[in-house]
Amino acid sequence: MSLHPLAQFIDNVPDFPKPGILFRDISPLLRDHFNATIDAISDLYTVEEWQQIDKLAGIESRGFIFAAALAYKHQKGFVKVRKPGKLPHVHASIDYGLEYGKDSLHMQKGDGSRILILDDLIATGGSLNATCQLCEQVGYQIAGMACVINLTSLNSFAYKGHQVRSVINYND
Amino acid sequence: MSLHPLAQFIDNVPDFPKPGILFRDISPLLRDHFNATIDAISDLYTVEEWQQIDKLAGIESRGFIFAAALAYKHQKGFVKVRKPGKLPHVHASIDYGLEYGKDSLHMQKGDGSRILILDDLIATGGSLNATCQLCEQVGYQIAGMACVINLTSLNSFAYKGHQVRSVINYND
Repeated sequence: MSLHPLAQFIDNVPDFPKPGILFRDISPLLRDHFNATIDAISDLYTVEEWQQIDKLAGIESRGFIFAAALAYKHQKGFVKVRKPGKLPHVHASIDYGLEYGKDSLHMQKGDGSRILILDDLIATGGSLNATCQLCEQVGYQIAGMACVINLTSLNSFAYKGHQVRSVINYND
Repeated sequence: MSLHPLAQFIDNVPDFPKPGILFRDISPLLRDHFNATIDAISDLYTVEEWQQIDKLAGIESRGFIFAAALAYKHQKGFVKVRKPGKLPHVHASIDYGLEYGKDSLHMQKGDGSRILILDDLIATGGSLNATCQLCEQVGYQIAGMACVINLTSLNSFAYKGHQVRSVINYND
């Protein structure tokens, strides 16, 4: 499968943040093609599917970028999925292992509405899987998960029948 | 001066993240009134002023939310102002003191374009002042600074003639 045309604006940086990791830097994409990127994520869902989404959850911190722009575009609520120590009135938290280290995510209480989870990139799926569980724990219904980049060779992630959707899929 | 109507959706949390700090939690505002919040920030600048802005810089991590939504609304580029260790090809960094601790911000090289800096809240102005300096160091022109909340009793911040503009101003 050929790469999405927006992939040409990804800067592929070897050995960052540590040796052996090929970092997919989205900075040039966001700096020079921001609306095209947001519209490409938006197009992963049909108009009918967008109507079934109430809120967008952004995973700190790059997930905030995509969840915020899409929330504005589609006039939805914005919900933060935060790292420890940042959020008052935390209703639930979850610990998980990620590609290089361990982390924890916190959320406030939800209201039963349908939430779409956004992040910049899915590698092993650890953050997304933890966020799906956490969203349900605090009281949201999962409507789906979307990313700009999917490192498809590292995951075959789905959560209760919801497949993650992504714009640029690297399978190497 | 009376508070902006959106202030009713701020959750005022005493003693967070430590005793004596009154935390202004924007979570309910973003969850239930996201587009109104973004439009209120947008309205701090005239149509003519928006035409003079090329890119929006978001300060990690809550600044990302506002810079992203406004970048989409006005079809501008999005630039990240990041904490240490997250960004490859860092062109310059700056250390600064903030309300409770010390921090450092990193940016990649700029292109001479005019940039509007976004954050959620200005307290002492430390992050915004550091970001203004850093934006100039990497090669952007400062077009202005905007926040949702200004704790006006803690600062009288301006940078080379640019006053920070904000939607909700607390002077207590």
